[in-house]
Amino acid sequence: KINGERLWDSLMEMARIGPGVAGGNNRQTLTDADAEGRALFRTWCEDAGCSMGLDTMGNMFAMRPGTDPDALPVYVGSHLDTQPTGGKYDGILGVLGGLEVIRSLNDLGIKTKHPIVVTNWTNEEGTRFAPAMLASGVFAGIHTQDWAYDRVDAEGKRFGDELERIGWKGDEPVGARKMHAFFELHIEQGPILEAEGKEIGVVTHGQGLSWTQVTITGKESHTGSTPMPMRRNAGLGMARVLDLVDQIAWSHKPHAVGAAGHIDVYPNSRNVIPGKVVFTVDFRSPDLAVIEDMEKRLHEGAQKICDGMGLSVEFEKVGGFDPVEFDAGCVKAIRDAAERLGYSHMNLISGAGHDACWINRVAPTAMVMCPCVDGLSHNEAEEISPEWATAGANVLFHAVVETAGI
Amino acid sequence: KINGERLWDSLMEMARIGPGVAGGNNRQTLTDADAEGRALFRTWCEDAGCSMGLDTMGNMFAMRPGTDPDALPVYVGSHLDTQPTGGKYDGILGVLGGLEVIRSLNDLGIKTKHPIVVTNWTNEEGTRFAPAMLASGVFAGIHTQDWAYDRVDAEGKRFGDELERIGWKGDEPVGARKMHAFFELHIEQGPILEAEGKEIGVVTHGQGLSWTQVTITGKESHTGSTPMPMRRNAGLGMARVLDLVDQIAWSHKPHAVGAAGHIDVYPNSRNVIPGKVVFTVDFRSPDLAVIEDMEKRLHEGAQKICDGMGLSVEFEKVGGFDPVEFDAGCVKAIRDAAERLGYSHMNLISGAGHDACWINRVAPTAMVMCPCVDGLSHNEAEEISPEWATAGANVLFHAVVETAGI
Ligand SMILES: NC(=O)NCCC(=O)O
Ligand SMILES: NC(=O)NCCC(=O)O
Repeated sequence: KINGERLWDSLMEMARIGPGVAGGNNRQTLTDADAEGRALFRTWCEDAGCSMGLDTMGNMFAMRPGTDPDALPVYVGSHLDTQPTGGKYDGILGVLGGLEVIRSLNDLGIKTKHPIVVTNWTNEEGTRFAPAMLASGVFAGIHTQDWAYDRVDAEGKRFGDELERIGWKGDEPVGARKMHAFFELHIEQGPILEAEGKEIGVVTHGQGLSWTQVTITGKESHTGSTPMPMRRNAGLGMARVLDLVDQIAWSHKPHAVGAAGHIDVYPNSRNVIPGKVVFTVDFRSPDLAVIEDMEKRLHEGAQKICDGMGLSVEFEKVGGFDPVEFDAGCVKAIRDAAERLGYSHMNLISGAGHDACWINRVAPTAMVMCPCVDGLSHNEAEEISPEWATAGANVLFHAVVETAGI
Repeated sequence: KINGERLWDSLMEMARIGPGVAGGNNRQTLTDADAEGRALFRTWCEDAGCSMGLDTMGNMFAMRPGTDPDALPVYVGSHLDTQPTGGKYDGILGVLGGLEVIRSLNDLGIKTKHPIVVTNWTNEEGTRFAPAMLASGVFAGIHTQDWAYDRVDAEGKRFGDELERIGWKGDEPVGARKMHAFFELHIEQGPILEAEGKEIGVVTHGQGLSWTQVTITGKESHTGSTPMPMRRNAGLGMARVLDLVDQIAWSHKPHAVGAAGHIDVYPNSRNVIPGKVVFTVDFRSPDLAVIEDMEKRLHEGAQKICDGMGLSVEFEKVGGFDPVEFDAGCVKAIRDAAERLGYSHMNLISGAGHDACWINRVAPTAMVMCPCVDGLSHNEAEEISPEWATAGANVLFHAVVETAGI
């Protein structure tokens, strides 16, 4: 078993870097706080006897050697970046849980056949630079590195420049590594495990995601002196599209979801009718056909709304991935571990996207989840219990060691 | 008659300061560009032989002395600040039209009995610091100066601090001046004069305004893993309230208007359900009872919408004024001038708020308007013809000189 107290202490120590305003964290990717968090993680890995690899996307790889020189490593990890108002566990638990696997192997003097590598994937959250899971996506060959470098944040700063600025751009070509398997521990970020009273989620699938950036253009004009019939109010067009997004998601009960988290209004002045709005619609479902249907209805419905209001509308797909089915062998390793350790468990479909969803394309992959209070995530109040963290890390430990072989 | 070419040249020269991105201006109040515009105006006034007064709100007063030492000055003016994506004439025409009155009197060697004072009122637009017409409001005793100083912009900067920073805080106590009358020339910012083919609008009334800042609070959570029934989506609540605002305004055809130009979403991340939105509803009507009805229906309707969605809502009135009836004598002076000069004219209700609306509380006041192309304002493409500007300034000249006496 792993050392739950040490894992918890590390989580709390990492949470001191990039504190939020309400008890959580703001350690967005490629900020100074991200650099500081990376440095702490590297120190811990070196203290645990690992060598640290760094690729050209800033992905970190801490390796504990195996006994078989020909065996590919078993990878384990997640991400250290957070939302602007994020929690202390989303991603971090998976990275530090992986580190705890290595620390525990050291404590127990266990040598594994396959090396074990703990990863920190760059920019999983996708808040500062869309899309989410950017660097694991480049690793898996989904995006080119050049395209990733050219992503810009709200201030127009390039991903590639910011990676260099914080000093975490490595030399290793991204995606060169081959993996025996990849395991990711993560908090559920949803309410199911808690509601069902289970300690462990065995993630069999991940739902797919579609991010469509919608730009509605109207005409800036005076809120006081422009008669109602002459208005081309892009903000009102957006309001109607947001309601449509909600209707579309509900129409695919029980699984599909839809909302817009990102909304920018121009020129954003109290007495100017918005001439332009830009917002991102997030649709998800475990069923690809449902995602495609939702996208189609968004395009058609928003076009119709805008046509009727003298507005123009453009759509840009800024992120997305198809629903994922994880590797049966890796899923079984997770389930067997939970069973062996006597934890209550159930199968889960991940509601969120994870680095594991991309790595699943290039290596046998699975995920283990632990509950979080009220299913709340992407909120500074995100909370888990030390017992849940310990259970998740124990299952990770057993699945990894079994897969890496002794 | 005034010198239309000189007036136009001055308009074009002022427009070089704080250029916009699309041919208009971004010379928001208390920015460096505002300071530069003020300095140019002061130079022009001094060149025209005026002395410059400056009060503690940054209001500028350029005086041309009169012949009667006991006569109160006739005031004339408007504002030099612009929207973030504003035009070259909104406000500026009224200030430089006033300067042109003085320059023309100098050319013609005419001395008036009453002094004439050209004013530039600080922060008319209200974009950076709500409410609009802030400094004329303090002058008229509507707001206290301390309250005005404490208004903050989107970055949290205080009005009082920014006024000091740009070096345009004077010593003269605000509101100490007494006026014989006040005249404001302004572009219509609406489509009526152009549609009716009239050169001059004789403004008899101004419609009233209500700015309600609405804060809807839900719960930040993950857009992917939060099931639809568990969501408390503040952005969706806002969308429904925006639609309601539109319905309320239309229900009071033909005159009332309503929209929201200012919308901020928190934390504004693509994969976080908005936990908070703040937006400002702008309702206007020439009828106070209609404004009050619209406010009431907004409060009740938004409360109902939010109650039904598990959201909380708060309302704060951040600006507003009652419908205005301008001084009969001053209005007559404007109409007589248009008549005398042979310009086609009609009565108008101002759709926008103006400094004249506040000054009307403390002095006999009226406004003259000229058309603008397509009724478009609060847009960088705002346009007028030199002939319209000349006609407006000629009417202003005649009304002012008649009121100031020779
Ligand atoms: N786990 C997580 O929150 N990932 C961010 C990507 C997503 O929006 O699902
Ligand atoms: N004239 C003008 O645009 N004033 C700004 C105040 C308002 O919103 O009416």
